[in-house]
Amino acid sequence: MSAETAFAGVVGAEHVLGPARLALRDPGWCAGSQGAGLLVRPGSTAELAEVMRVAAAEGLSVVAQGGLTGLVDGTWSAPGQAIVSFERMARIVDLDAAQGVAVVEPGVTLAALDAALAPLGLMAGVDIAARDSCTIGGMVATNAGGTRVLRYGMTRASVLGLEVVLADGTVLDLMAPLLKNNAGYDLKQVFIGSEGTLGLVSKVALRVFARPQGSACALVGLEPGALGAVMVALRAGLGDGLAAIEAMWPGYYDTVAGLIGLTRLPMAGQGLYVIVEATGTSDAAARSALEACLEPLLEAGLLADAVIAQSQADRAAIWRIREESGAIDAAYGVALSYDVGLRLADLQGYVERLTARSPAPPLVFGHVGDGNLHVMFALPEGVERAPFDALVYDTLAEIAGSTVSAEHGIGLEKRAALQAALPPPVLAAMRSLKAAFDPQNRLNPGKVL
Amino acid sequence: MSAETAFAGVVGAEHVLGPARLALRDPGWCAGSQGAGLLVRPGSTAELAEVMRVAAAEGLSVVAQGGLTGLVDGTWSAPGQAIVSFERMARIVDLDAAQGVAVVEPGVTLAALDAALAPLGLMAGVDIAARDSCTIGGMVATNAGGTRVLRYGMTRASVLGLEVVLADGTVLDLMAPLLKNNAGYDLKQVFIGSEGTLGLVSKVALRVFARPQGSACALVGLEPGALGAVMVALRAGLGDGLAAIEAMWPGYYDTVAGLIGLTRLPMAGQGLYVIVEATGTSDAAARSALEACLEPLLEAGLLADAVIAQSQADRAAIWRIREESGAIDAAYGVALSYDVGLRLADLQGYVERLTARSPAPPLVFGHVGDGNLHVMFALPEGVERAPFDALVYDTLAEIAGSTVSAEHGIGLEKRAALQAALPPPVLAAMRSLKAAFDPQNRLNPGKVL
Repeated sequence: MSAETAFAGVVGAEHVLGPARLALRDPGWCAGSQGAGLLVRPGSTAELAEVMRVAAAEGLSVVAQGGLTGLVDGTWSAPGQAIVSFERMARIVDLDAAQGVAVVEPGVTLAALDAALAPLGLMAGVDIAARDSCTIGGMVATNAGGTRVLRYGMTRASVLGLEVVLADGTVLDLMAPLLKNNAGYDLKQVFIGSEGTLGLVSKVALRVFARPQGSACALVGLEPGALGAVMVALRAGLGDGLAAIEAMWPGYYDTVAGLIGLTRLPMAGQGLYVIVEATGTSDAAARSALEACLEPLLEAGLLADAVIAQSQADRAAIWRIREESGAIDAAYGVALSYDVGLRLADLQGYVERLTARSPAPPLVFGHVGDGNLHVMFALPEGVERAPFDALVYDTLAEIAGSTVSAEHGIGLEKRAALQAALPPPVLAAMRSLKAAFDPQNRLNPGKVL
Repeated sequence: MSAETAFAGVVGAEHVLGPARLALRDPGWCAGSQGAGLLVRPGSTAELAEVMRVAAAEGLSVVAQGGLTGLVDGTWSAPGQAIVSFERMARIVDLDAAQGVAVVEPGVTLAALDAALAPLGLMAGVDIAARDSCTIGGMVATNAGGTRVLRYGMTRASVLGLEVVLADGTVLDLMAPLLKNNAGYDLKQVFIGSEGTLGLVSKVALRVFARPQGSACALVGLEPGALGAVMVALRAGLGDGLAAIEAMWPGYYDTVAGLIGLTRLPMAGQGLYVIVEATGTSDAAARSALEACLEPLLEAGLLADAVIAQSQADRAAIWRIREESGAIDAAYGVALSYDVGLRLADLQGYVERLTARSPAPPLVFGHVGDGNLHVMFALPEGVERAPFDALVYDTLAEIAGSTVSAEHGIGLEKRAALQAALPPPVLAAMRSLKAAFDPQNRLNPGKVL
């Protein structure tokens, strides 16, 4: 009996896709995601567990796929592997408004969850640009980040419970949807962010949050050296109302403004552009808190300029340059993008070292409230990637407490960078974890480690 | 060479304590914590690593001890073991106000950290009653909870980086103090809450938070059936300003009020007493938000009564009964205390089942915002514990999504309850984790599993 037939016996023939049907599907952001030529769509945890047992019996390794929005080739697959896709496991199982908990199957998209939560005045803690396609299972598997990490944490911070299927089909019920649970080792933490290499997420209990009643947004200009003092003042002045701090260095700001043809910039000529988002009991209250916080910073000269959005149109204008990084991808033959993390005190020094050493100017923006920089290089067709990898990661290695992947994960793309960055005992401990949960190396083999 | 001599060669003879010097020390809340009769005080990570190698060579297992404030006999020790105490590793290494990060050695107490943070307008996210004695290392090892979990999460949510020493003396540097770090498996999660059974915490990078600029506090009375609707309204009305929801059932409220001789109660005759804490940009703003939130609930009849504290004295009066659970321990020969977790929707049903089945009335209070109940039984001297264990845990087992330990952990005390509560595959996976990181079972053996 072929593997296809065996899988069809579990999920039905219409849910076992071969190369021809796979070719009709969007491969997502990883060109090699459909290389296995075999995709199985379980409809339940029981089917998934049986699929894992069949894969084991057939000697196939398994690549889990969600919304295919990952950026590090974590969903790449090859012959000898079976893709498990979660599109049939996409039910919202329960929304408990009193508890603030959503229980969902892994194939639910972030947008679908948020649409279901909105009428209850609730929202997911994490928000990322891929919200219409990315799935909750994929977000858990990659510990997705985004623009609200400063307030709500990474996806890990929202996961209250998980159900996980191991390589041998064992189902782990770690679903108690409680904020507090110290009943032995917190096994779900092992699987969050493990990129499908330790187990497959089959159900998620997610903490959800009250939608802010009001919000406000400002764009400020400052010298990079003032960023630390400004952060301290924002934290003290806005407290729990501080929702996001996003920065754009001038190279990025001017490049994107040019590419999208903005004629009226909200601000110009600054050393650093920073977007500050605040929440409050109303839009007016948030705006007023933001004003009260920024005014003394302007007077003290810590800020060179500041504008507070007075309307949704103002807000959109402020966010537009930050959100249009895709314009760089569209306009250049080679647009390299990195996702590094550093301590706040080291951000500017890193950007300066890159600028001094690079043959092309780095275009830098990111979630500075979280220490997360996205570094892009806009290059003509044919330019090699390797020297830029070396530049970005070797320069990063000079700085203690930095990371080669703040939010995108490792996948295939950053394996070499991870190996070079981490101390051997840490890599050895990661391999021990892999061996403990996937001793035969059948889950997304070759990824992460 | 004896073990004592070998340890003295690492840390100096004055930091190796035998039975006589141990007898002079406070054993803390676990009567058997000094049973090993041998305690070693390393002064640095390097010394700790060498202590672990000596212990391995001498065939001794290791029990880590911090402030000895644990409630589940997690620090119990016996001959054939060496206690490692962190009192000499108690330096605050770095406070970075801009980043909002504190780097500390494990022996720093929570109170010492908060005292150092206060002048910077910062505080630790977690607060627990044992703050003067409990250490950051112990809080990480037990994933400590407390009264601010609703807003800031358990200790896990605050840990940005860890340094860990394994049983064989290997040092794992997991210290990047970043909010966002997806560079491979997040190994520090394995050690948080592992109660000293997988590795010893030798340094911690902790996220710290802006002190709220203002706060307000209310006591409300309601029928237990209204709790869910009230929680929804509090979440919607206070948003990020909702800081704590603590409840007292009448049996607890009346018993403690009687024991501490309160003549003027803030409120009486209610089905459930709930304390609501709110934060805001000033005390007045928090109070006003609380008023605006509670008033319609009173009008709608969801609340039977409500008082908002107008002064610190009012606030102290509201919190006094909640905080004086120790009066029960002092007044009764046997005061049993449990720490369970349930979904909000199940809390009242659980209390009712316990009440119906128990030979003595359960005295119940807890962090209902987190689904965490503390259940006490006040009994005369000589009453056996076992039937009450059976009552509490068997009744809990009837309710899906519950936990036998919300915040206190497992230690020795709750091992049987854990074994009974968790599915065999989950227990097997926990044993795999133990085997991967402590294959010779030399770290706090016999605890948790």
